[in-house]
Amino acid sequence: MLRMYDLIEKKERGKELSEEEIRFFVSGVTDGSIPDYQVSAMLMAIFFRGMSNPEIFTLTDAMAHSGDVADLSGIRGRKADKHSTGGVGDKTSLIVAPMVAAAGCGISVAKMSGRGLGHTGGTVDKLESIPGVQTSLPADKFFDIVNRTGLCIIGQSGSFAPADKKLYALRDVTATVNCIPLIASSIMAKKLAAGSDYIVLDVKCGSGAFIKTEKEAEKLAKLMVDIGENAGRKVAALITDMDVPLGHAVGNSLEVIEAIETLSGRGDEDLTVLCTALAANMLYTAGVGDYGECEQRVSETLKNGLAKKKLADMIEAMGGDPAYVYDTSLFRESRISAVLASEGSGYVTRIDTEEVGKAAAVLGAGRAVKDQKIDHSAGIILHKKTGDKVKEGDVLATLFTSTVEKAQSGMEMLYGAVTFGDKPPKKKPLIYKTVRGI
Amino acid sequence: MLRMYDLIEKKERGKELSEEEIRFFVSGVTDGSIPDYQVSAMLMAIFFRGMSNPEIFTLTDAMAHSGDVADLSGIRGRKADKHSTGGVGDKTSLIVAPMVAAAGCGISVAKMSGRGLGHTGGTVDKLESIPGVQTSLPADKFFDIVNRTGLCIIGQSGSFAPADKKLYALRDVTATVNCIPLIASSIMAKKLAAGSDYIVLDVKCGSGAFIKTEKEAEKLAKLMVDIGENAGRKVAALITDMDVPLGHAVGNSLEVIEAIETLSGRGDEDLTVLCTALAANMLYTAGVGDYGECEQRVSETLKNGLAKKKLADMIEAMGGDPAYVYDTSLFRESRISAVLASEGSGYVTRIDTEEVGKAAAVLGAGRAVKDQKIDHSAGIILHKKTGDKVKEGDVLATLFTSTVEKAQSGMEMLYGAVTFGDKPPKKKPLIYKTVRGI
Repeated sequence: MLRMYDLIEKKERGKELSEEEIRFFVSGVTDGSIPDYQVSAMLMAIFFRGMSNPEIFTLTDAMAHSGDVADLSGIRGRKADKHSTGGVGDKTSLIVAPMVAAAGCGISVAKMSGRGLGHTGGTVDKLESIPGVQTSLPADKFFDIVNRTGLCIIGQSGSFAPADKKLYALRDVTATVNCIPLIASSIMAKKLAAGSDYIVLDVKCGSGAFIKTEKEAEKLAKLMVDIGENAGRKVAALITDMDVPLGHAVGNSLEVIEAIETLSGRGDEDLTVLCTALAANMLYTAGVGDYGECEQRVSETLKNGLAKKKLADMIEAMGGDPAYVYDTSLFRESRISAVLASEGSGYVTRIDTEEVGKAAAVLGAGRAVKDQKIDHSAGIILHKKTGDKVKEGDVLATLFTSTVEKAQSGMEMLYGAVTFGDKPPKKKPLIYKTVRGI
Repeated sequence: MLRMYDLIEKKERGKELSEEEIRFFVSGVTDGSIPDYQVSAMLMAIFFRGMSNPEIFTLTDAMAHSGDVADLSGIRGRKADKHSTGGVGDKTSLIVAPMVAAAGCGISVAKMSGRGLGHTGGTVDKLESIPGVQTSLPADKFFDIVNRTGLCIIGQSGSFAPADKKLYALRDVTATVNCIPLIASSIMAKKLAAGSDYIVLDVKCGSGAFIKTEKEAEKLAKLMVDIGENAGRKVAALITDMDVPLGHAVGNSLEVIEAIETLSGRGDEDLTVLCTALAANMLYTAGVGDYGECEQRVSETLKNGLAKKKLADMIEAMGGDPAYVYDTSLFRESRISAVLASEGSGYVTRIDTEEVGKAAAVLGAGRAVKDQKIDHSAGIILHKKTGDKVKEGDVLATLFTSTVEKAQSGMEMLYGAVTFGDKPPKKKPLIYKTVRGI
């Protein structure tokens, strides 16, 4: 008869928990039989003592099987998924999924995305800025859209990894979020439950991500790849920079518009490079061919218009108006737009990406509590980014919001987030490293 | 505006909490505004990061003032108190308090004692094995008894250090009991709230105590002395052995009888030595004179019968029958007594004191849950102790209980607790060290 007290004490003393003990813990978290105060004591003990790989594999597997597990067998062929550890202005799913589907290699993207809290909404919130789009779909409809168009991104229905949900909620209020084994198992439990066999992870690091250093990001990336491979999936992880916001747009419809521009081959260079790498790795991981070939295949979809058409097809299949993809002036504009101009000359040496995200949230783009309504048209367009030269009076950013007060607060926050200097900063790579399984 | 999350994170990162932050924590624990899962995360972070002395002083002071604080101004003269960190067969309060009162130095003992859970009852449970003794008394009656007789030991009324009570309950289920700063502040918060100015602590170490090593015991002792002195009290701490049960009796009325024997000058040597040291230190700490003089004063009370008379006076004042002190055959006997005999010859090399305590509890001497009824006559008399030579058939112990089943279980546990060998073990000192304030 296992007792939670003994498990806490064992972990506290730095001993390894057995498979049986970890499954007992996860099942007690899921059914609520272990009280929160013991769960949070265990989380803090794990924070200090860490976990071994076998412990982490079991924890992830137990969490993945703590609720519904997606059965994607209704979808033909190989299914690839991507996941980003989150950052400011990350609209890559909206670009990468159409690229993979348009590459014509028989790899489809059946993606379930959370709404989540944060500076801006999740991918489904972004999609909902196009009128008519239905992101809550029954499984048969979801499968049908993927089988017809090669992709579909819907809101997470059912209850994937409820144990993770409970653990995450406790970690969030007990300062135990920032713990590599817990981060890795949390992300991978949901990915394993979501059913795709080929998984590409975008591990963000830098001021705008919750992982601040490349070293930590690499540790996390390797661990997640190990977890996935141990569970019989093929996984690759890209470690990418989040010291500057990705692209220029932060906010829901603003990001959809930027995604469409990128799919039209007119996107920001960094964003295009990253999306190409993610999409190419999805094909490569699924065994389409050598990496150069995969890269060429996905790059072409931006030039021949096929990726853009895939996004339009998906939106139409989901009940939305595909015209928005071809004419972005159809998107509803915000009531107020305000311009932030530079007060001096020099170079942008640093943008505090997290502050930009917070400013976007203040403007109305994000959600502070569950079920809060999002202002789809609110957000920020950054006209200058790190390394750019600016003269006095140059427009640094445009802010979109609904009230003068919000514009004022957002403006102040945004101005505080930008640092200027006499010399341009050293250019950093966008993709630090790619970690693959053996 | 302080947030508990930030305090947990600060402690987790090894930073020192400010006085304001610790008071916020304790007040939130007391009024329940901080949820248990955050409190237990903090406790685990403290377990790993420790606390600085200023943090500990503030924590103790805040807990001491989280509820009622005893006002002993209704008692004349200097008030001394003693506290033991707990052990098996510890009946010292019943001996030490009469010795101090009988020494005639104007030092009185106004002691409030918890019932507590454990292998045997608390001091008030032991006193209640004498018919008629009332251990719940109003303050004026309590003061009056102390003023008339120089001592009184009552059950804790009111709510002393409720913050500690809540924290202890959480520590108990989250494996964070064994943490020196939390142990020290927990004990001292209650002692500071209990009102006496002169405090002598008996810090037990060994297999029968929750502190296992002398080094740890010394750390705890020094810390408690520092806490007390910082709060303006005079404190001494004795570090004493708990590798063997103290004296020969474990169980409520059995211990009262042994206390009476000791007060009559016929007690076990170790027990007499320890009680003399505790009582002498109470006088010494209260400034009665040099240590040798204090020791002589209290020793005399065992020879001239005055200490025994003090116990009888107190029992009478509390409504009990003082005849029991002069004729211990009056104590009710248990229904069943059973004898444990040795199966071989040699020396007792070790007694697992904690197991002896557990055996006593199984026999009925202890309380597993609050408000459980205690069998006052149940328990164990150890006839042989560590270092004693035994021959086959020698009586090792007598067990007292109410049913054959309990006797059988207790017998098995007790036999497993005793280790034999060919050579006598090295004799260990009873009192390792005395720690005093500056």
